[in-house]
Amino acid sequence: MTIDSDPKGECQQVPPWNNIVIQKRTTQLNLIPETWRLPAEVLANPPASSIEIIRASGILSTKELAWTETTDICDLVSLIKTRSITSEQLTTAFCKRAAISQQVNKCLTEIFFERALQRARDLDEILRRTGEVVGPLHGVPVSVKDRFDVEGVDTTVGWVGLTNKPAQSNSSVVQLLESMGAVLYVKTNVPQSLMMSDSYNHVFGQSVNAFNHALISGGSSGGEGALVGSRGSILGVGTDIGGSIRVPSGLQGLYSICPTTGRVPWDCSFLHQHYLIPPVAGPMATSLATTEYFMESLLKSDPWNIDPGAIPIPWRKELASPPTNRKLRLGVVFDDGVVKPQPPVARAMRETVDALRAAGHEVIEWDTTLHVPATNLWTKGILADGGQHCHSLCQIVDEPLIEGMVVGTEKDLLSIQEREKLEETKYALQTTFLKQWVNSGIDALLMPVLPWVGYKPKTWVRSKQWLGYTAMWNLLDYAGVTVPVTRADRALDSAGGGLNAEWEGHSIRNESDAFNYLQYDIDLVHGMPICVQIVGGRFGEEKAVAVGKVVDELMNPTPFHS
Amino acid sequence: MTIDSDPKGECQQVPPWNNIVIQKRTTQLNLIPETWRLPAEVLANPPASSIEIIRASGILSTKELAWTETTDICDLVSLIKTRSITSEQLTTAFCKRAAISQQVNKCLTEIFFERALQRARDLDEILRRTGEVVGPLHGVPVSVKDRFDVEGVDTTVGWVGLTNKPAQSNSSVVQLLESMGAVLYVKTNVPQSLMMSDSYNHVFGQSVNAFNHALISGGSSGGEGALVGSRGSILGVGTDIGGSIRVPSGLQGLYSICPTTGRVPWDCSFLHQHYLIPPVAGPMATSLATTEYFMESLLKSDPWNIDPGAIPIPWRKELASPPTNRKLRLGVVFDDGVVKPQPPVARAMRETVDALRAAGHEVIEWDTTLHVPATNLWTKGILADGGQHCHSLCQIVDEPLIEGMVVGTEKDLLSIQEREKLEETKYALQTTFLKQWVNSGIDALLMPVLPWVGYKPKTWVRSKQWLGYTAMWNLLDYAGVTVPVTRADRALDSAGGGLNAEWEGHSIRNESDAFNYLQYDIDLVHGMPICVQIVGGRFGEEKAVAVGKVVDELMNPTPFHS
Repeated sequence: MTIDSDPKGECQQVPPWNNIVIQKRTTQLNLIPETWRLPAEVLANPPASSIEIIRASGILSTKELAWTETTDICDLVSLIKTRSITSEQLTTAFCKRAAISQQVNKCLTEIFFERALQRARDLDEILRRTGEVVGPLHGVPVSVKDRFDVEGVDTTVGWVGLTNKPAQSNSSVVQLLESMGAVLYVKTNVPQSLMMSDSYNHVFGQSVNAFNHALISGGSSGGEGALVGSRGSILGVGTDIGGSIRVPSGLQGLYSICPTTGRVPWDCSFLHQHYLIPPVAGPMATSLATTEYFMESLLKSDPWNIDPGAIPIPWRKELASPPTNRKLRLGVVFDDGVVKPQPPVARAMRETVDALRAAGHEVIEWDTTLHVPATNLWTKGILADGGQHCHSLCQIVDEPLIEGMVVGTEKDLLSIQEREKLEETKYALQTTFLKQWVNSGIDALLMPVLPWVGYKPKTWVRSKQWLGYTAMWNLLDYAGVTVPVTRADRALDSAGGGLNAEWEGHSIRNESDAFNYLQYDIDLVHGMPICVQIVGGRFGEEKAVAVGKVVDELMNPTPFHS
Repeated sequence: MTIDSDPKGECQQVPPWNNIVIQKRTTQLNLIPETWRLPAEVLANPPASSIEIIRASGILSTKELAWTETTDICDLVSLIKTRSITSEQLTTAFCKRAAISQQVNKCLTEIFFERALQRARDLDEILRRTGEVVGPLHGVPVSVKDRFDVEGVDTTVGWVGLTNKPAQSNSSVVQLLESMGAVLYVKTNVPQSLMMSDSYNHVFGQSVNAFNHALISGGSSGGEGALVGSRGSILGVGTDIGGSIRVPSGLQGLYSICPTTGRVPWDCSFLHQHYLIPPVAGPMATSLATTEYFMESLLKSDPWNIDPGAIPIPWRKELASPPTNRKLRLGVVFDDGVVKPQPPVARAMRETVDALRAAGHEVIEWDTTLHVPATNLWTKGILADGGQHCHSLCQIVDEPLIEGMVVGTEKDLLSIQEREKLEETKYALQTTFLKQWVNSGIDALLMPVLPWVGYKPKTWVRSKQWLGYTAMWNLLDYAGVTVPVTRADRALDSAGGGLNAEWEGHSIRNESDAFNYLQYDIDLVHGMPICVQIVGGRFGEEKAVAVGKVVDELMNPTPFHS
């Protein structure tokens, strides 16, 4: 086994860190029991969808398939609490499913099934003995992105140089998950540097989409997206600094919450000297109910008693329900004027707005004037360390930096005075934007998560990527949720329809727009899920969830994931 | 008039910016009506206390004296609301009092009485016409530190180079005060750089203590302390990055709240690239009720709709009341082991703890092991820009930097990597401290605001100042309040008493301790107020206020300010 260190394939000699990677991947594979491995013939020619393979594998029983395909985590919590099933049974089912998922979509990094099963048995024993659950997630497996420390296993974050350095303690969100009774069993794959929407790295390779292995799973929480999408996890915790929760959620049709800083405790939110933009942590799932249950339970666990960055605002249930005495007032952005959304995305937005209007809600077009300056400021902040942080991580083992990520070069490095100036500009823009938001009187803003539906692996780095649809909200520190509303459809989204006449007549605006335009291939992306993004404002998690509930009910009369 | 640019008096030639200062001070003086000026003979030989001068001046009527010596702002709000007095009457009274105060203790920078009186008349007219107040501070004058922008007047912050540059808009807290119906009429003096506990600068000179003009008013909100102390304002808004609200409050016996970042909206809290420590804004007053009314009213005004840094936590009234079903559990620090508090401070602490214990509350000694590393980290953060920010402000008019302030030099400058490391160390310490705090189960921690009672002007810069008693809480971002509990007393705090035997036998620990020890002179500080500091933890404003109420009731059976 040699490692493809260069997406362009120009550098095929064996790199000096090859042995580290071979050892790491071998260890990883060995952590999957033989009986949970797919036959070589399936691996050689797998179906396009992870779900299909898992269902056909015969590795999970009918019951295990049903448990793992539950969408509302409360159903599993209840099954365990009533002792209808044990945590050991449930954990076994999710371990099996994650193991198969990993074999076809490379969603995992760290695997610790044995430890998880031991914990599950311990939790079963506590419940048996005391009749009480230890917390709101008692016995339920939860997965986390390989960005959080889990004691005793690596936090590689996609860097060869960070392998074989087991964490000495748990990140605060992991501590809280454990105190809530969750069973951790895997960590999930990310891109090198975290700064791309395609999750591949030299250590664990290329993660692909749960619904189509020819397409990417997104990033940087791409492994989490593929794992939750293939139902190898009912609840995953990702992180987001420019779209890293929302993009993989968008590509796998997941419900997710990208909160304002401090809402979900995560030490790194406050260690952003190299980026100037606070990264946040949040839930990804196949139902809105699961994401809300995570938030509500977490915020009942007094996270501010563990994490000095957590803000003591409980989950405001009353704000998370749609108002009963009035209709919603929503803003909408169909197209931000920089990169035109591909036809399935445009249709998803249009159908959602039509459904909302038909239900009596008011939807007004949003002035996007500030979106470009906001996104540009975001980029300047992200690049501000001139790439030094990533370069220092490369240097540990002389690993090459993957080209095309959102990582600064020497010319982007800001002095302390320039950083100060940037903070001032950012604050001024946040203030101006807040004025627009408050004056508009909207409950939330609807817009695409992404202007595209699916890219092939290793094309994103060549896309002159425009991250404006997601990244500007990180600059503003506004909370948002994603809700799946439709799937790309060969019949609806190809030449011939009215919308497509518009698409075909589109005048290219810039390089990013050109790339996105040329990538569109309905035959490639047919059937892929499409989400809308619902932005709720600063500390607007509950508002976004309330609007999400309305959208979900209108667009998904039957559950999107079934 | 020439300006003493050098506290040591070594450089007496006229500096090139002398004319700017003369012009600024002349303008300032001219803004005080002739009839409100003190006779030359009083100014030549004024009594030690501003209060005494004001009461004897004959400039305020008996009613005006009574209104301005009210301690609970709600009484004034109510007088106006019931139309027992007009805002114009009240504003006139406070303008007079502030004007006299300024003449003897140099508490002011910007004076805008005319504008204030016009606003007062407008507010009176609104109330007369509509029968409604515009907000919870309708018609009540409120003062702010010269750190906030008030449209149309300078924000000098003690720098000659910032004179004659009127602000284009209002800071968010000023906007909110106005929306709440407050009448702004003055801004208050600060030290050059804000980084000392003695408020003097080349523009406006030396602010001194309201109760003893031979002593300093503290800093950096020293002008505010002297103004509120002399009752030229019933409510002032200061800022604090290392003690700047609490120190002047301590020296003038004021009640104050130094909140956690985001609680009181202030844009600068989030623009701390040069300091790495977030500065916060908060109220200073002669009653705890006034500070609480400010917080409660402010947080009802949806500040998060104006300031993108404000955190949407309302004033949690239930937490701000002492528990009724149990006694308090409090920690106490009598001496942090670095600088030994002077006898009046030690007595204040001891008497407070004795009173609390006698009332049945539990008071445990607090382990101060983390106080030194926390303070050292604070210092490193404050100095991290190597003084560049201050030097650039000096350079505007070639103004010299005052020696001895907490301003970095070239050797303190941190690289971006070192800043990152510092942020990590800070977060780790915050986490460890939080563990100690939560495990201790205390409601709040009592400690001295300062280890000293009063310094003469321009000695603080030679004090090898130890800011640990206040600054470490800024590093931790913990909220605190100050409550006056006693006054220095020649009989109780001089040689002879048991405590003083201990003081006299004290072994000097370090240079800061030596300075503080040698400065102590009970004859100099006799009668000066002493506060205790009550630290409530992160977002612990309400808890600290609840404990403050208990302390206040025990220690001040009659109001401290009368």
